[in-house]
Amino acid sequence: MAEPTSLEMRIKTLEDIEQIKKLKAKYWRCVDRKLWDELAECFTEDATADYGPKVQLQGRKAILQFLKDSLGQETMITTHGGHNAEIEIVDDNTARATWALNDMIIIQPSTRMEGWGYYEDVYARQNGQWRKKSTKIVRYLEEWGMQKR
Amino acid sequence: MAEPTSLEMRIKTLEDIEQIKKLKAKYWRCVDRKLWDELAECFTEDATADYGPKVQLQGRKAILQFLKDSLGQETMITTHGGHNAEIEIVDDNTARATWALNDMIIIQPSTRMEGWGYYEDVYARQNGQWRKKSTKIVRYLEEWGMQKR
Amino acid sequence: MAEPTSLEMRIKTLEDIEQIKKLKAKYWRCVDRKLWDELAECFTEDATADYGPKVQLQGRKAILQFLKDSLGQETMITTHGGHNAEIEIVDDNTARATWALNDMIIIQPSTRMEGWGYYEDVYARQNGQWRKKSTKIVRYLEEWGMQKR
Repeated sequence: MAEPTSLEMRIKTLEDIEQIKKLKAKYWRCVDRKLWDELAECFTEDATADYGPKVQLQGRKAILQFLKDSLGQETMITTHGGHNAEIEIVDDNTARATWALNDMIIIQPSTRMEGWGYYEDVYARQNGQWRKKSTKIVRYLEEWGMQKR
Repeated sequence: MAEPTSLEMRIKTLEDIEQIKKLKAKYWRCVDRKLWDELAECFTEDATADYGPKVQLQGRKAILQFLKDSLGQETMITTHGGHNAEIEIVDDNTARATWALNDMIIIQPSTRMEGWGYYEDVYARQNGQWRKKSTKIVRYLEEWGMQKR
Repeated sequence: MAEPTSLEMRIKTLEDIEQIKKLKAKYWRCVDRKLWDELAECFTEDATADYGPKVQLQGRKAILQFLKDSLGQETMITTHGGHNAEIEIVDDNTARATWALNDMIIIQPSTRMEGWGYYEDVYARQNGQWRKKSTKIVRYLEEWGMQKR
């Protein structure tokens, strides 16, 4: 018979889940507020990102460069809202999650893209801090239009 | 004077709240990805669903049939985003929650419905797993239009 | 060397985070359902609200009056969805958080405003209950248009 999980282990699992939720929230906040240095903390150095069939990125540096180049202009407004977290702590330093996303990208003065999809993420704990090790977005829907005022 | 709740009980309550959040996230993910077998796990066999004045469903089988019939066609895209969870653990095997919902239903090639509302749910734990025992959606707002591209 | 945090303290922190999430969810639910008496419980008596450059409010009474006056008419429908919580328990009775917001205000029969932004909040525990002590909204984006049907 398996030994019952200790209280300490159960608390740690709950803390890990909350920390991963905060990591994901920080990632979106840093993108939307263009906080690139703080955004860098969200990824492991060897992180990979699959942001769509044509956007396969290897390494934190490449991911940050892509995000800055594609979303960082002063004429752009982005909003990312995360929902429906399903987080699984796989082992002491590994976790997995799915999330739903609703995002908006405004390229002033005219273009508006609203999107819906989901993430499939893997996280790693390094030096006591959870980071994104791999992230993948699958889109259900994109709506392109004119910016509304 | 009431005896203080044991640490184990307090941890269990936190775990239950997280499990119910995951259950709700799984429910929406399974609807949006059309994963009907996995969706069945989200309901008790005697579950009821109140999806509006004309949609009163009794039993898991009827609920699944309704969801498949109304949202399952390949021409449909749905997105469900949950917010604002208020979960209350009532007793060892019963919980209640309210949630806010923002959903979208696209019936290709043309119809688009975006909705806002809230859920009132009751959950039961059966064989160690939380499931929906009753679910009710009250809508604030529906917007019908043409699909955007 | 710092003494390790006791299990009880770690559980309490997790409980506090969940209570603050519920407080925020209750706040939005009470606004959207126009439950003004219940809404009052969400604020400390000396709470402040910064709802934009022209809306600086001092005290629970002023905040409630503003919310009732600006969102309370029967012709208005509002929906508030919160995301991306980053909650920090500062000390036993103080916490801070950022949140992302997507809200909608319909003024029937015609006006529609959809907004995106983020909150910066401070919470205080009073008589065992977390309440909003200060709240600030910064908007990324507002879209004004006609109500859709």
